[in-house]
Amino acid sequence: MSLDWLGAPCATPDAAIADTARAHQTQLTKPPGSLGQLESLAIQLAALQRVPNPAVEQVWISVFAGDHGVADEGVSAFPQVVTGEMVRNFATGGAAISVLARSLGAQLEVVNLGTVNDPGDIPGVRRAIIAPSTANFCLGPAMSEAQFAAALAAGADSVRAAKAAGAQLFIGGEMGIANTTAATAVACALLDEPPSRLAGAGTGLNAEGIRHKVSVLERALAQHADAVTAAERLRRLGGFEIAALTGAYIAAAQAGLPVLVDGFISTTAALAAVAIQPQVRAWLLFAHRSKEHGHARLLQALDAEPLLDLSLRLGEASGAATAVPLLRLACALHNGMATFAQAGVSNA
Amino acid sequence: MSLDWLGAPCATPDAAIADTARAHQTQLTKPPGSLGQLESLAIQLAALQRVPNPAVEQVWISVFAGDHGVADEGVSAFPQVVTGEMVRNFATGGAAISVLARSLGAQLEVVNLGTVNDPGDIPGVRRAIIAPSTANFCLGPAMSEAQFAAALAAGADSVRAAKAAGAQLFIGGEMGIANTTAATAVACALLDEPPSRLAGAGTGLNAEGIRHKVSVLERALAQHADAVTAAERLRRLGGFEIAALTGAYIAAAQAGLPVLVDGFISTTAALAAVAIQPQVRAWLLFAHRSKEHGHARLLQALDAEPLLDLSLRLGEASGAATAVPLLRLACALHNGMATFAQAGVSNA
Repeated sequence: MSLDWLGAPCATPDAAIADTARAHQTQLTKPPGSLGQLESLAIQLAALQRVPNPAVEQVWISVFAGDHGVADEGVSAFPQVVTGEMVRNFATGGAAISVLARSLGAQLEVVNLGTVNDPGDIPGVRRAIIAPSTANFCLGPAMSEAQFAAALAAGADSVRAAKAAGAQLFIGGEMGIANTTAATAVACALLDEPPSRLAGAGTGLNAEGIRHKVSVLERALAQHADAVTAAERLRRLGGFEIAALTGAYIAAAQAGLPVLVDGFISTTAALAAVAIQPQVRAWLLFAHRSKEHGHARLLQALDAEPLLDLSLRLGEASGAATAVPLLRLACALHNGMATFAQAGVSNA
Repeated sequence: MSLDWLGAPCATPDAAIADTARAHQTQLTKPPGSLGQLESLAIQLAALQRVPNPAVEQVWISVFAGDHGVADEGVSAFPQVVTGEMVRNFATGGAAISVLARSLGAQLEVVNLGTVNDPGDIPGVRRAIIAPSTANFCLGPAMSEAQFAAALAAGADSVRAAKAAGAQLFIGGEMGIANTTAATAVACALLDEPPSRLAGAGTGLNAEGIRHKVSVLERALAQHADAVTAAERLRRLGGFEIAALTGAYIAAAQAGLPVLVDGFISTTAALAAVAIQPQVRAWLLFAHRSKEHGHARLLQALDAEPLLDLSLRLGEASGAATAVPLLRLACALHNGMATFAQAGVSNA
């Protein structure tokens, strides 16, 4: 599989529609600017969707699951079997993202990219198995070139399915025991930051666990110091689900489908996507600042202003799903409020 | 009308149900604590509603409107006629809170407490006219004792209507040209802060406008320096809609109905309510940190951790309405997620 598609141009937001939407906001019956980020969100969505009345009723959520060789280094508070167990839980409706998707009326797709504890064929799970796990990146590259290409393509496949289903917003999520370690490795390599700056508690490490995680990351980064491109850093230090998210974000931007980015791991994938194809950035909205230690630094690197700050640190796209109603209300206000003229209200 | 009811005891949150809800959260299929404020919200709502499965499907929103004598001092960017014009706009569905209430399926009640530009009888508006306006508090008390009692009672009336309609959450909002000036006066008196610390742009004052507002507030505070109780400070410096919100918050806490507090003006009313009857505090959830300059200080005084920070500064209950989906999703997660045992997922 070729990676040439990653560099293809992205769609262009409509600047004229953004201007129209901005002017419309000043006519609505409220002091100008008084709806803050709800105004800028509506304007941004109008420009991305290229319509005067943006909408995010049709929301597509893909959760990508995959296991990580670096789990062998003892970097997670949970055992590796949980990845496969959670794939089943996503599909049977008991996980946080399952409940959120149901509440929002969003389409939830679960993609199994390879788990050591394989839950097998489950209704509602797309099997796109690459391998039971990535390799331990302390010892070698996490993914072969073919595996990396397959993971990126799996993400793009989800975007194609989302577009075909009429999605107005794409959300990606992830599950994979040890994947904050992989994401931290990628982020450190992309941002040239030491692991001590970005490593956090993940699912619940204590201070000693975080120190151990940092030492594992230091070994991994030394091992792969010769990787210079963003794609190569992602291949060597990432994971199937992280690469799938990167592929999905790039494909969504190319297809003109706005993306709502979730937490630490998703933001790492977004960082890689923007490093590979900078035009992706315009298509990314950021849902929240998570409690995972390094997330604020990643958001800063992307000049992102997230909508929520609720100390979430679950992943699975749960933070992005939680922010969906804000986008919907921003659209409802933009499309449904009366203007000063319509309502006969005096302006300032 | 007597004010004795203000001091009556509030309902008591159920500590045993809070413990049960907290224990339940640790059994759900996620790392403990990983849903952050969504977890604490669900636990708090369970304790307030005294049920293991809290719900906020039935939301009641009362928007109280009233005019302010202090508008004569030129402290607002908008003309005073706008208060009455907006009462009509609330009722006919064009205002931000109208759109939000519709989107949320919430019950919206508009209460006209007295506007200089009286819109008259309008379907969907409850007329509880006290006077066309408060008095200019630079010259004397904003409200007579009878007016103050009537405003507090109007808020309690709304809570009674909300309870009768089966509301699971009460939201109060306000409209009144010059009411950030009145709220700032009350807040300065209650917190012993200088106006320069708390005065902000309101609907859109420039720096010179804010300086003028501060000087008006300094005169008013000097004029009423002998008011020592919270209730008397609210009577002399507040407004009909601010007092109605205070009355509503106290009545809601007495009736065991959880409250979601909106922005700067609502938080001032909450501060007054807690100063008058400290047991009210347990019943207050805080929706957002607004962009109005003094709001952060008020939230700090109430030890409040708001849910949103979106640079909103509209009032009308709009920020509280925007936060309602977070409460609903918190309840959905608490009530709908599988436990580790149910899902066959290994624990840490």
